Amino acid sequence: MKKILHILSIQQFTSSEVLKIFHQTCQMEKNAQRSVNLRSKSKGIVLLFYQPSTRTRASFELASHFLGYRILYSTEAAEFFSSAAKGESLEDTIELFSNYPGVKVIILRHPEKGSADRAAKIAGPYGISIINAGDGANEHPTQALLDLYTIYKLRLNQKPMKQIKLVVANDIEHSRTIRSLCLLFAKIFRPLEIGVSAPKNINLAKDIQNGLKDSGVKIIKFNDLKTAALWADFLYMTRPQIEYYRSKKLAKKFQHFRISKDFLDSIPQNYPCQILHPMPIDSKNFNEITDEARHHPRCQIFQQARNGIYIRMALLKMLLK
Amino acid sequence: MKKILHILSIQQFTSSEVLKIFHQTCQMEKNAQRSVNLRSKSKGIVLLFYQPSTRTRASFELASHFLGYRILYSTEAAEFFSSAAKGESLEDTIELFSNYPGVKVIILRHPEKGSADRAAKIAGPYGISIINAGDGANEHPTQALLDLYTIYKLRLNQKPMKQIKLVVANDIEHSRTIRSLCLLFAKIFRPLEIGVSAPKNINLAKDIQNGLKDSGVKIIKFNDLKTAALWADFLYMTRPQIEYYRSKKLAKKFQHFRISKDFLDSIPQNYPCQILHPMPIDSKNFNEITDEARHHPRCQIFQQARNGIYIRMALLKMLLK
Amino acid sequence: MKKILHILSIQQFTSSEVLKIFHQTCQMEKNAQRSVNLRSKSKGIVLLFYQPSTRTRASFELASHFLGYRILYSTEAAEFFSSAAKGESLEDTIELFSNYPGVKVIILRHPEKGSADRAAKIAGPYGISIINAGDGANEHPTQALLDLYTIYKLRLNQKPMKQIKLVVANDIEHSRTIRSLCLLFAKIFRPLEIGVSAPKNINLAKDIQNGLKDSGVKIIKFNDLKTAALWADFLYMTRPQIEYYRSKKLAKKFQHFRISKDFLDSIPQNYPCQILHPMPIDSKNFNEITDEARHHPRCQIFQQARNGIYIRMALLKMLLK
Repeated sequence: MKKILHILSIQQFTSSEVLKIFHQTCQMEKNAQRSVNLRSKSKGIVLLFYQPSTRTRASFELASHFLGYRILYSTEAAEFFSSAAKGESLEDTIELFSNYPGVKVIILRHPEKGSADRAAKIAGPYGISIINAGDGANEHPTQALLDLYTIYKLRLNQKPMKQIKLVVANDIEHSRTIRSLCLLFAKIFRPLEIGVSAPKNINLAKDIQNGLKDSGVKIIKFNDLKTAALWADFLYMTRPQIEYYRSKKLAKKFQHFRISKDFLDSIPQNYPCQILHPMPIDSKNFNEITDEARHHPRCQIFQQARNGIYIRMALLKMLLK
Repeated sequence: MKKILHILSIQQFTSSEVLKIFHQTCQMEKNAQRSVNLRSKSKGIVLLFYQPSTRTRASFELASHFLGYRILYSTEAAEFFSSAAKGESLEDTIELFSNYPGVKVIILRHPEKGSADRAAKIAGPYGISIINAGDGANEHPTQALLDLYTIYKLRLNQKPMKQIKLVVANDIEHSRTIRSLCLLFAKIFRPLEIGVSAPKNINLAKDIQNGLKDSGVKIIKFNDLKTAALWADFLYMTRPQIEYYRSKKLAKKFQHFRISKDFLDSIPQNYPCQILHPMPIDSKNFNEITDEARHHPRCQIFQQARNGIYIRMALLKMLLK
Repeated sequence: MKKILHILSIQQFTSSEVLKIFHQTCQMEKNAQRSVNLRSKSKGIVLLFYQPSTRTRASFELASHFLGYRILYSTEAAEFFSSAAKGESLEDTIELFSNYPGVKVIILRHPEKGSADRAAKIAGPYGISIINAGDGANEHPTQALLDLYTIYKLRLNQKPMKQIKLVVANDIEHSRTIRSLCLLFAKIFRPLEIGVSAPKNINLAKDIQNGLKDSGVKIIKFNDLKTAALWADFLYMTRPQIEYYRSKKLAKKFQHFRISKDFLDSIPQNYPCQILHPMPIDSKNFNEITDEARHHPRCQIFQQARNGIYIRMALLKMLLK
C-alpha cells in the first residue's frame, strides 16, 4: 500500500486500499477492546455540558487527571456545537457514547429536569455510568455531597451531625443545590430542625417542605439574615437565579439580602456561624456575599469549592474501580 | 535569575532575564524537535472544527486516545473562538499549525466546499496530513468509509459485495454523506445497480448520477420507502438538511418519509433489509427513524456509529506510522 | 458498599454510603496533595480565554504538551460557557482555580485592561502564577517576547541589537502587541531610534511615545511604507483592529497600507528589510499582507509564529520548575 498523506476524498482510494483499511479496522476493533479490558486506567470519561459551568466541569476534569482516568471527550457548549444543534435527541447522543469502546462514565449537565434519568435509562444497559451534573432546576447531587462533606469536616467540637443547625438562605425557591442539600442532609444526618431565610414570598418548594416533614425535620423560618446567623452553625447562602424570575420587582427583593463584612463582624465571637455558598456569587447584579466578606474568617466558600475536587475523585473512583 | 512568579507585562523583565529566556528558548527549539523525532507517539493531532459535530470529532478524539497519539489542540467552534473571527484565512490557520513542531495530522471540518483541498495545498509541502472531516455539502470521506465498512461487515451470507443492493434514501440531494458513499461504493465494489428513494423532486446531484453511470451502475428509483425496503439489502436513510431548503413547503415533503417500528415489522422475515443512517437523526423536526425503530433488530445505526472509531483508528495509524 | 452504577440523585445514597464516600474523599485530599508534591510533572496548567484566540492558546497548549505539563482545564469561550455568564467576577474564578490542588499556572486572556493584574493579586498569595495572554488593548507580554526573540534570532550579520532598525506599522494606535513590543525593545536593547509608519492621524499612544522618549529612543515617522521598508531591518506590520473604530471612514484609511509581492520585490536586494506580523492577518477586510507576499523570502511571519511555541516553553519551564 503506497504511502497516503491526505484523506480528502473517497475518490483517492483504490479498492485494495479500502479493503486493507477495513482489515486494519477489524484489528483495531479487536485490540481496542482487549486493551480497554486489560488496563483499567484506559477506561475513560466523557463530559457533556449543555449549560455554562466552571466549578463542576473543572473539578470533574481535575479529579479525572489526578486519578489517571482519561477524559476521552469534553464539550462545554453541546447545545451549540454538537449534533444537538441539528435536532439530535439526548437519548441518541447518550446511546452513541455508551456504545463507544472505552467509555465508562458520562458526566451530564443538561437544562431539562429529568434528563439525567433519561440518560441513565439508555446508558445503564450498556454498563455505562451517568453522573448528573445538574438537570435543570431539579437536582445537582455531587454539589449536595460536597456541601454536606464541607459541613461534616468543618463542624465545631465534633458536634454530632444530627445537632447541626443549618440555615438555607436567599433564593431557596429555585436553587437545585438547596433542593438536593436539604433532602440529603435530612436523610443522612436526621437533624431535628432546619432553618430557612429568604425574602418575602420566596419559599421552599412544596415537595421539599413535605420531604423534610416526612423525615421529622422541623422547618424554622427566619425573616432576616441576622437572626438566622445567630441561630445557625452554617448559613448556606445562594445566588438569586434571576433567569427564573419574570418580574423585575421580585428580583429586587434580593437586593436587601446580602452578607457583608459588617454583617459578619456583628456576629459575636462565641457564635459558631460559618458561611457557605455553592458559587458562583453574582457579583454583577446582587453581590449576595460582598467582596470583603468572601475572605472573612467565617466564610468557607473557597474551601467548599476545593472539596468539590475530592468528592468527585471519590465518586469517580467508586464508579470506575 | 531571580524566581519569577507572574508574567504580566514586559516591563517586569530585566535585559539579562530576557536574554536568558531567549537562550532557554533556543534550547527548547532544539530539544522539542529532537524529542519529536525520537518518539513517534509524540507526534500529535490537531482538530479544527468550524461547524457543529458530535460523532466525527468524538470518534477522532477517541481514536487518538486509543492509539496513544496526542491531541495537541482541539477547537469545536473555530468560527467563533479562533482568529477566524478576526478575519484570518483558512490558509493562514493551516500554515500556522503545519509549521508548529510536533503536528502531524490536522483534522478539518469547514463549511466551504473545497476547503480540505485548499488546506492540503498548504499542509502538503510541510509533510502534514489533512483529514477532511466534512467540507460543506461536498464530501465527508471518513464517513463514507465507515458506512461502507459497516455494509462490508454486516453483509448476509458473505454475499459478494458487487451484488449488494443498497438504497440511499430521503434527502439524497444535500447529503454529502450520500455523495461520498455512492461514489465510493460504485468504485470499490462495482455494483450492478444502486437504489434511490426520496420525496418527489428530490434528486441525486447530476454529477453523482453521471459518476454512477460512468461506472456502469444502474440507478433504480423507488417512489416509496416500502418498495425500496423489500428490494434492498441495506436502506441508507438520511436527515433532511433543512438548513439548505428555503421553502417550508419543500421541507414538508420529508414529513411522510419515515421509518417506524410498524414499517420495519411489516417487512417479511425472509427479506434481508437492514437500516443504516449516518446520524444525527433529527428528532426535533422529522424523526426520520422513530425512537422505537432505532432499536429494531433491522436497525444498525449505533453499530455503524461505533465503527467510526475503528475506521478512524485505522486511518490515523496509516497517516502517523 | 454495594456497587453503584449511576449518580443521579442524593436520594439514592444510604447514610453509610455517604459516610464511606466522605472517608474516601479525605483520603483523596491527602493523596492528591502528596502526589502533587512528589511529581513535579503533575503540576498543571489552566487556560482561561475570554476572547477568541488561535496562536496564543494553541502555542501554550503545545508548549505544555512538549514539556509534559498537564493541561488541567482549558476553556476557549469563558465569557459564554463559564460561570462568568452567571455574573461571577474574574476574581472569584481566579481564586477558585488558585485554590484547587495541582494548579500551578493560570493563563488568562480577558477583554478588560488590567485584568491580569487583578488576577495576580488574587493568585499570588496562593503561590499560583498568572500569565497575561492579552488584557484588552493593554498588553500581551508573551507576544512581545516572541517578537523580540524573532528579531534577536534573525538579525543580520549579528548586528548589535541596539543598532537594529525596527519600524512598527499600520494600526499602531490600538495594537497591544505594538505597545508591549515598543516598550520591551526600548528597555532591553536600548536602540537609538524606532520607526513608525501608519495612515494619517493614527498615532502611537501618548504613554508609549513618552516611554520611548524617556528611554532616549528617537521616534522616526514614515508617511509611506516604502520609505520605511528601505530604512528598516524589520518592518513590523499589524492588523487594523476595526473593532475599535466607530467610523467607517477611518477604517478605510488602512485600505492603502498594504504589503504586496510587488512591494517586496521593489526593495533592492542589498536592503535588509524583513517583514514581521503578530498575525492574524485580516484576509477578509484588509489583506494587509497579501497572500503572495506571505511567502516572499522577506516575510518571516510563520517562523515568528513558530517561535511562539519555544518562548512559551521557556516561560512555562521557568514558572513551573
